[in-house]
Amino acid sequence: MTANAPSPALSSISFNADGLVAAIAQQHNTGEVLMLAWMNAESVEETLRTGQVCYFSRSRGKLWRKGETSGQIQSLVEMRIDCDGDALLLLVDQKGVACHTGRRSCFYTAMRDGKLTEIAAPSVDPEILYNRT
Amino acid sequence: MTANAPSPALSSISFNADGLVAAIAQQHNTGEVLMLAWMNAESVEETLRTGQVCYFSRSRGKLWRKGETSGQIQSLVEMRIDCDGDALLLLVDQKGVACHTGRRSCFYTAMRDGKLTEIAAPSVDPEILYNRT
Repeated sequence: MTANAPSPALSSISFNADGLVAAIAQQHNTGEVLMLAWMNAESVEETLRTGQVCYFSRSRGKLWRKGETSGQIQSLVEMRIDCDGDALLLLVDQKGVACHTGRRSCFYTAMRDGKLTEIAAPSVDPEILYNRT
Repeated sequence: MTANAPSPALSSISFNADGLVAAIAQQHNTGEVLMLAWMNAESVEETLRTGQVCYFSRSRGKLWRKGETSGQIQSLVEMRIDCDGDALLLLVDQKGVACHTGRRSCFYTAMRDGKLTEIAAPSVDPEILYNRT
Protein backbone atom coordinates (compact mmCIF):
# COMPACT_ATOMS: atom_id res chain seq x y z
CA MET A 1 0.00 0.00 0.00
CA THR A 2 1.42 3.38 -0.91
CA ALA A 3 1.09 6.29 1.45
CA ASN A 4 -1.77 7.74 -0.54
CA ALA A 5 -3.72 4.59 -1.32
CA PRO A 6 -7.08 4.33 0.43
CA SER A 7 -6.97 2.06 3.44
CA PRO A 8 -8.57 -1.37 2.93
CA ALA A 9 -10.57 -0.54 6.04
CA LEU A 10 -12.66 1.88 3.99
CA SER A 11 -13.95 -0.78 1.62
CA SER A 12 -15.19 -2.82 4.57
CA ILE A 13 -17.03 0.02 6.27
CA SER A 14 -20.70 0.64 5.55
CA PHE A 15 -21.05 4.36 6.06
CA ASN A 16 -24.61 5.51 6.70
CA ALA A 17 -26.61 7.93 4.55
CA ASP A 18 -24.71 10.81 6.15
CA GLY A 19 -21.38 9.18 5.30
CA LEU A 20 -20.70 8.29 8.93
CA VAL A 21 -19.94 5.21 10.97
CA ALA A 22 -20.26 4.80 14.74
CA ALA A 23 -16.97 4.39 16.59
CA ILE A 24 -16.56 3.09 20.12
CA ALA A 25 -13.39 4.16 21.94
CA GLN A 26 -12.11 1.65 24.48
CA GLN A 27 -9.01 2.00 26.64
CA HIS A 28 -6.83 -0.77 25.27
CA ASN A 29 -5.36 -2.09 28.51
CA THR A 30 -8.25 -1.73 30.94
CA GLY A 31 -11.27 -2.43 28.73
CA GLU A 32 -13.01 0.74 29.88
CA VAL A 33 -15.45 2.04 27.28
CA LEU A 34 -14.69 5.73 27.06
CA MET A 35 -17.09 7.18 24.51
CA LEU A 36 -19.06 6.71 21.33
CA ALA A 37 -18.57 9.12 18.45
CA TRP A 38 -18.77 9.17 14.66
CA MET A 39 -16.25 9.01 11.85
CA ASN A 40 -16.40 9.73 8.14
CA ALA A 41 -14.05 8.27 5.55
CA GLU A 42 -11.62 11.15 5.90
CA SER A 43 -11.39 10.81 9.67
CA VAL A 44 -10.86 7.04 9.40
CA GLU A 45 -8.03 7.62 6.94
CA GLU A 46 -6.46 10.34 9.07
CA THR A 47 -6.69 8.21 12.21
CA LEU A 48 -5.00 5.26 10.53
CA ARG A 49 -2.36 7.49 8.96
CA THR A 50 -1.46 9.56 12.01
CA GLY A 51 -2.24 7.15 14.85
CA GLN A 52 -4.15 9.93 16.60
CA VAL A 53 -7.91 9.49 16.72
CA CYS A 54 -9.90 11.93 14.61
CA TYR A 55 -13.70 11.85 14.61
CA PHE A 56 -16.30 13.75 12.62
CA SER A 57 -18.27 16.17 14.77
CA ARG A 58 -21.91 16.03 13.74
CA SER A 59 -22.71 19.22 15.65
CA ARG A 60 -19.85 21.21 14.14
CA GLY A 61 -19.99 19.47 10.77
CA LYS A 62 -16.26 19.01 10.52
CA LEU A 63 -13.33 16.83 11.50
CA TRP A 64 -12.78 16.64 15.23
CA ARG A 65 -9.24 15.84 16.18
CA LYS A 66 -9.84 14.47 19.65
CA GLY A 67 -7.92 16.53 22.16
CA GLU A 68 -7.11 19.40 19.79
CA THR A 69 -8.63 21.87 22.26
CA SER A 70 -8.40 19.98 25.55
CA GLY A 71 -5.10 18.19 25.03
CA GLN A 72 -6.83 14.93 25.95
CA ILE A 73 -5.73 13.02 22.87
CA GLN A 74 -6.44 9.41 21.98
CA SER A 75 -3.60 7.40 20.46
CA LEU A 76 -4.82 4.54 18.33
CA VAL A 77 -3.68 1.09 19.35
CA GLU A 78 -5.92 -0.87 16.97
CA MET A 79 -8.99 -0.31 14.81
CA ARG A 80 -11.51 -3.11 14.55
CA ILE A 81 -14.56 -3.39 12.30
CA ASP A 82 -17.71 -5.29 13.14
CA CYS A 83 -19.29 -8.13 11.21
CA ASP A 84 -21.55 -5.97 9.09
CA GLY A 85 -19.16 -3.05 8.79
CA ASP A 86 -21.36 -0.42 10.39
CA ALA A 87 -19.49 0.02 13.65
CA LEU A 88 -15.86 0.49 14.62
CA LEU A 89 -14.09 -0.38 17.84
CA LEU A 90 -11.08 1.81 18.50
CA LEU A 91 -8.63 0.46 21.03
CA VAL A 92 -6.93 3.59 22.24
CA ASP A 93 -4.58 4.99 24.79
CA GLN A 94 -6.51 7.91 26.27
CA LYS A 95 -4.47 10.75 27.66
CA GLY A 96 -6.27 12.15 30.69
CA VAL A 97 -10.03 12.12 30.30
CA ALA A 98 -12.28 11.32 27.34
CA CYS A 99 -15.36 13.24 28.45
CA HIS A 100 -15.84 16.99 28.04
CA THR A 101 -17.21 17.02 31.60
CA GLY A 102 -13.77 16.11 32.90
CA ARG A 103 -14.61 12.48 33.55
CA ARG A 104 -12.57 9.58 32.27
CA SER A 105 -15.57 8.04 30.46
CA CYS A 106 -18.70 9.61 29.02
CA PHE A 107 -20.74 6.71 30.48
CA TYR A 108 -20.87 7.98 34.04
CA THR A 109 -24.64 7.76 34.55
CA ALA A 110 -26.09 4.39 35.46
CA MET A 111 -29.56 3.06 36.04
CA ARG A 112 -29.46 1.65 39.56
CA ASP A 113 -32.51 0.69 41.59
CA GLY A 114 -34.73 2.34 38.99
CA LYS A 115 -32.93 5.67 39.28
CA LEU A 116 -30.30 7.52 37.28
CA THR A 117 -27.16 7.56 39.38
CA GLU A 118 -23.90 9.39 38.77
CA ILE A 119 -21.17 6.81 39.27
CA ALA A 120 -18.07 8.90 38.53
CA ALA A 121 -17.08 12.41 39.49
CA PRO A 122 -14.97 14.66 37.26
CA SER A 123 -11.28 14.03 37.74
CA VAL A 124 -10.36 17.37 36.20
CA ASP A 125 -12.20 20.70 36.03
CA PRO A 126 -13.49 21.22 32.46
CA GLU A 127 -12.59 24.89 32.84
CA ILE A 128 -8.99 23.83 33.03
CA LEU A 129 -9.33 21.58 29.98
CA TYR A 130 -10.89 24.18 27.72
CA ASN A 131 -9.27 27.39 28.90
CA ARG A 132 -5.69 26.33 28.88
CA THR A 133 -3.13 29.09 28.70
CA MET B 1 -41.86 4.02 40.45
CA THR B 2 -44.85 1.89 39.66
CA ALA B 3 -44.54 -1.06 37.33
CA ASN B 4 -46.04 0.89 34.45
CA ALA B 5 -44.36 4.27 34.93
CA PRO B 6 -41.84 5.17 32.22
CA SER B 7 -38.27 4.62 33.30
CA PRO B 8 -36.33 7.78 34.18
CA ALA B 9 -33.75 6.51 31.70
CA LEU B 10 -36.06 7.47 28.86
CA SER B 11 -36.11 11.17 29.75
CA SER B 12 -32.31 11.24 29.62
CA ILE B 13 -31.97 9.54 26.25
CA SER B 14 -31.79 11.62 23.09
CA PHE B 15 -33.31 9.34 20.50
CA ASN B 16 -32.40 10.21 16.92
CA ALA B 17 -34.80 11.20 14.15
CA ASP B 18 -35.68 7.51 13.70
CA GLY B 19 -36.43 7.16 17.41
CA LEU B 20 -33.30 5.12 18.03
CA VAL B 21 -30.23 5.27 20.25
CA ALA B 22 -26.96 3.40 19.77
CA ALA B 23 -26.25 0.73 22.39
CA ILE B 24 -22.88 -0.87 23.05
CA ALA B 25 -22.96 -4.32 24.67
CA GLN B 26 -19.98 -5.10 26.88
CA GLN B 27 -19.38 -8.28 28.83
CA HIS B 28 -19.59 -7.05 32.41
CA ASN B 29 -16.75 -9.02 33.96
CA THR B 30 -14.18 -9.13 31.17
CA GLY B 31 -14.66 -5.75 29.49
CA GLU B 32 -14.96 -7.33 26.07
CA VAL B 33 -16.99 -5.20 23.69
CA LEU B 34 -19.41 -7.63 22.07
CA MET B 35 -21.49 -5.62 19.62
CA LEU B 36 -23.16 -2.35 18.75
CA ALA B 37 -26.88 -2.28 18.04
CA TRP B 38 -29.82 0.09 18.32
CA MET B 39 -32.69 0.51 20.74
CA ASN B 40 -35.95 2.41 20.65
CA ALA B 41 -37.90 3.57 23.69
CA GLU B 42 -39.90 0.36 23.82
CA SER B 43 -36.81 -1.85 23.74
CA VAL B 44 -35.13 0.23 26.47
CA GLU B 45 -38.22 -0.17 28.64
CA GLU B 46 -38.49 -3.88 27.98
CA THR B 47 -34.79 -4.43 28.69
CA LEU B 48 -35.01 -2.62 32.02
CA ARG B 49 -38.23 -4.39 32.94
CA THR B 50 -37.23 -7.92 32.03
CA GLY B 51 -33.46 -7.83 32.52
CA GLN B 52 -33.01 -9.46 29.12
CA VAL B 53 -31.58 -7.23 26.42
CA CYS B 54 -33.98 -6.30 23.64
CA TYR B 55 -32.82 -4.18 20.69
CA PHE B 56 -34.64 -2.69 17.73
CA SER B 57 -33.69 -4.31 14.45
CA ARG B 58 -33.35 -1.63 11.80
CA SER B 59 -33.35 -4.21 8.99
CA ARG B 60 -36.45 -6.01 10.23
CA GLY B 61 -38.12 -2.88 11.60
CA LYS B 62 -39.16 -4.50 14.85
CA LEU B 63 -38.08 -5.41 18.35
CA TRP B 64 -35.21 -7.84 18.43
CA ARG B 65 -35.06 -9.89 21.60
CA LYS B 66 -31.42 -10.87 21.51
CA GLY B 67 -31.13 -14.62 21.46
CA GLU B 68 -34.78 -15.30 20.65
CA THR B 69 -33.73 -17.42 17.67
CA SER B 70 -30.18 -18.42 18.58
CA GLY B 71 -30.59 -18.84 22.32
CA GLN B 72 -27.58 -16.57 22.81
CA ILE B 73 -29.29 -14.19 25.22
CA GLN B 74 -27.83 -11.16 26.96
CA SER B 75 -28.77 -10.64 30.59
CA LEU B 76 -28.54 -7.02 31.63
CA VAL B 77 -26.20 -6.23 34.51
CA GLU B 78 -26.34 -2.44 34.22
CA MET B 79 -27.45 0.19 31.72
CA ARG B 80 -25.40 3.37 31.45
CA ILE B 81 -26.10 6.55 29.50
CA ASP B 82 -23.48 8.85 28.07
CA CYS B 83 -23.00 12.55 28.80
CA ASP B 84 -25.18 13.79 25.97
CA GLY B 85 -27.70 10.98 26.13
CA ASP B 86 -27.22 9.67 22.62
CA ALA B 87 -25.45 6.43 23.42
CA LEU B 88 -26.00 3.60 25.87
CA LEU B 89 -23.53 1.19 27.37
CA LEU B 90 -25.08 -2.12 28.34
CA LEU B 91 -23.07 -4.19 30.76
CA VAL B 92 -24.31 -7.68 30.06
CA ASP B 93 -23.75 -11.32 30.74
CA GLN B 94 -23.62 -12.86 27.28
CA LYS B 95 -24.67 -16.46 27.00
CA GLY B 96 -22.52 -18.13 24.36
CA VAL B 97 -21.70 -15.84 21.46
CA ALA B 98 -22.92 -12.36 20.54
CA CYS B 99 -22.20 -12.48 16.82
CA HIS B 100 -24.41 -14.14 14.23
CA THR B 101 -21.22 -15.56 12.68
CA GLY B 102 -20.71 -17.71 15.77
CA ARG B 103 -17.99 -15.53 17.25
CA ARG B 104 -18.04 -14.18 20.75
CA SER B 105 -17.73 -10.56 19.57
CA CYS B 106 -18.78 -8.89 16.32
CA PHE B 107 -15.47 -6.98 16.29
CA TYR B 108 -13.31 -9.81 14.98
CA THR B 109 -11.69 -7.94 12.09
CA ALA B 110 -8.71 -5.74 12.89
CA MET B 111 -6.52 -3.43 10.88
CA ARG B 112 -3.01 -4.79 11.38
CA ASP B 113 -0.01 -3.80 9.30
CA GLY B 114 -2.29 -1.99 6.88
CA LYS B 115 -4.41 -5.07 6.25
CA LEU B 116 -7.74 -6.38 7.44
CA THR B 117 -7.04 -9.39 9.63
CA GLU B 118 -9.48 -11.84 11.17
CA ILE B 119 -8.49 -12.14 14.80
CA ALA B 120 -11.11 -14.59 16.07
CA ALA B 121 -12.56 -17.74 14.60
CA PRO B 122 -16.15 -18.85 15.17
CA SER B 123 -16.51 -20.77 18.39
CA VAL B 124 -19.80 -22.28 17.29
CA ASP B 125 -21.23 -23.12 13.88
CA PRO B 126 -23.94 -20.56 12.98
CA GLU B 127 -25.91 -23.41 11.41
CA ILE B 128 -26.24 -24.87 14.86
CA LEU B 129 -27.29 -21.52 16.33
CA TYR B 130 -30.02 -20.82 13.83
CA ASN B 131 -31.33 -24.27 13.00
CA ARG B 132 -31.81 -25.60 16.46
CA THR B 133 -34.16 -28.50 16.82
